[in-house]
Amino acid sequence: MVTNNSQHISQQFEKELQDIRSRVLALGGLVEQQVANAMDALLTGDSELAREVISFDDEVNDLELSIDEECIQIIALRQPTASDLRLVSGILKTITDLERIGDESVGIAKMAINLSEKDRPKRNYRELQSLGNHVRGMLRDALDAFARFDVEMALQVAKEDRDVDAEYEALLRQLMTYMMEDNRAVSRVIDMMWSARSLERIGDHAHNVCEHIIYLVEGKDVRHLSIEKAEKVIRGEPLD
Amino acid sequence: MVTNNSQHISQQFEKELQDIRSRVLALGGLVEQQVANAMDALLTGDSELAREVISFDDEVNDLELSIDEECIQIIALRQPTASDLRLVSGILKTITDLERIGDESVGIAKMAINLSEKDRPKRNYRELQSLGNHVRGMLRDALDAFARFDVEMALQVAKEDRDVDAEYEALLRQLMTYMMEDNRAVSRVIDMMWSARSLERIGDHAHNVCEHIIYLVEGKDVRHLSIEKAEKVIRGEPLD
Repeated sequence: MVTNNSQHISQQFEKELQDIRSRVLALGGLVEQQVANAMDALLTGDSELAREVISFDDEVNDLELSIDEECIQIIALRQPTASDLRLVSGILKTITDLERIGDESVGIAKMAINLSEKDRPKRNYRELQSLGNHVRGMLRDALDAFARFDVEMALQVAKEDRDVDAEYEALLRQLMTYMMEDNRAVSRVIDMMWSARSLERIGDHAHNVCEHIIYLVEGKDVRHLSIEKAEKVIRGEPLD
Repeated sequence: MVTNNSQHISQQFEKELQDIRSRVLALGGLVEQQVANAMDALLTGDSELAREVISFDDEVNDLELSIDEECIQIIALRQPTASDLRLVSGILKTITDLERIGDESVGIAKMAINLSEKDRPKRNYRELQSLGNHVRGMLRDALDAFARFDVEMALQVAKEDRDVDAEYEALLRQLMTYMMEDNRAVSRVIDMMWSARSLERIGDHAHNVCEHIIYLVEGKDVRHLSIEKAEKVIRGEPLD
């Protein structure tokens, strides 16, 4: 009887954890769409779409808060330990990064509105497109890695962040030359710089999500470690 | 006997919570010093001090990770509920923001190094000093509010963030005019902009810390609410 009962409880608990995982993926899907819309608004000068991104941020925030509450509820009621507790605390960290990605897409949307009110240069801000696609790919892969709790994939995505940073640095140098060449471009180019910075930050948050996946699957905290060290930690090799 | 035993456990638990609170304050003290040193390095062109800030970031990260582990340990072993669980989960969020403040001070230190290699304008970057002092005051008050778990003080600090944002916006406009007036100033002024942005972010994180204080003391999650709404929530007044 006790067994059936505890079995029943653990099944119930499993169900709750599954439910949370799918809600995290729903949150991930929302912020993915927010980033996509913010970039579209930026590249097409669609200020209407940009305003939608800004107003939709409330729903992103609400979903994060409700998942957060659900996690605290589970900890209080189920008192998980070991891997279950790791899962819940890893999810608490993951949703914080996802919500921040939402904030960064709002930042891009605001720049999209600024830029929609200025004459558009012939390049039409395509300089930002490749960085944007790169970061969106990272985010999508990070969410896939979360969906499958795939540590190897999480490591690969974390590696991507370096290329994103390099692409970002190169873009900044390019934008700086625009300003040196043409004073009248300054305020427009500054808006592009803030947008590029937001994209780079989104890459960082996707990287963080991957570190949380590694933590909640492997129980190894690889935050602040280089990729090489993180790999060693995961493979149980000594750090020299 | 059981009572003595559980009394003993709860005293032990209290001791652990006290220990964590003081370690959070130690972390707060470290990042406060990091911000102070980064600003000194920026304003005096002291690249040596800037390098110290960058290398010291490891200790900030290590302390955050160890407090994080300690919190998870406590949740696993003590299985706190209600206000104790809120305290621990609020602390987990607080240390994330404190660690990010450390990251932003590293960002300022990197700009300090860039700027130390360029000729210094006559204003010597004093434009950043007042924003820097403002933000450092916010951070100090946020940590005081944490030390005393003072919700009213936390609300006051959260309000400060608006003035910081306004000061930041004004500074950006000023810096923009520098670039329009003198192309040769562009790369120097961009470094100042990134520094200003980091200061503004530090203000945001101090604001977040205040929201965590309100949550862990009052059990009310006021994230994403306007100050007016947050005050109503805390006073138990209806949101209209």
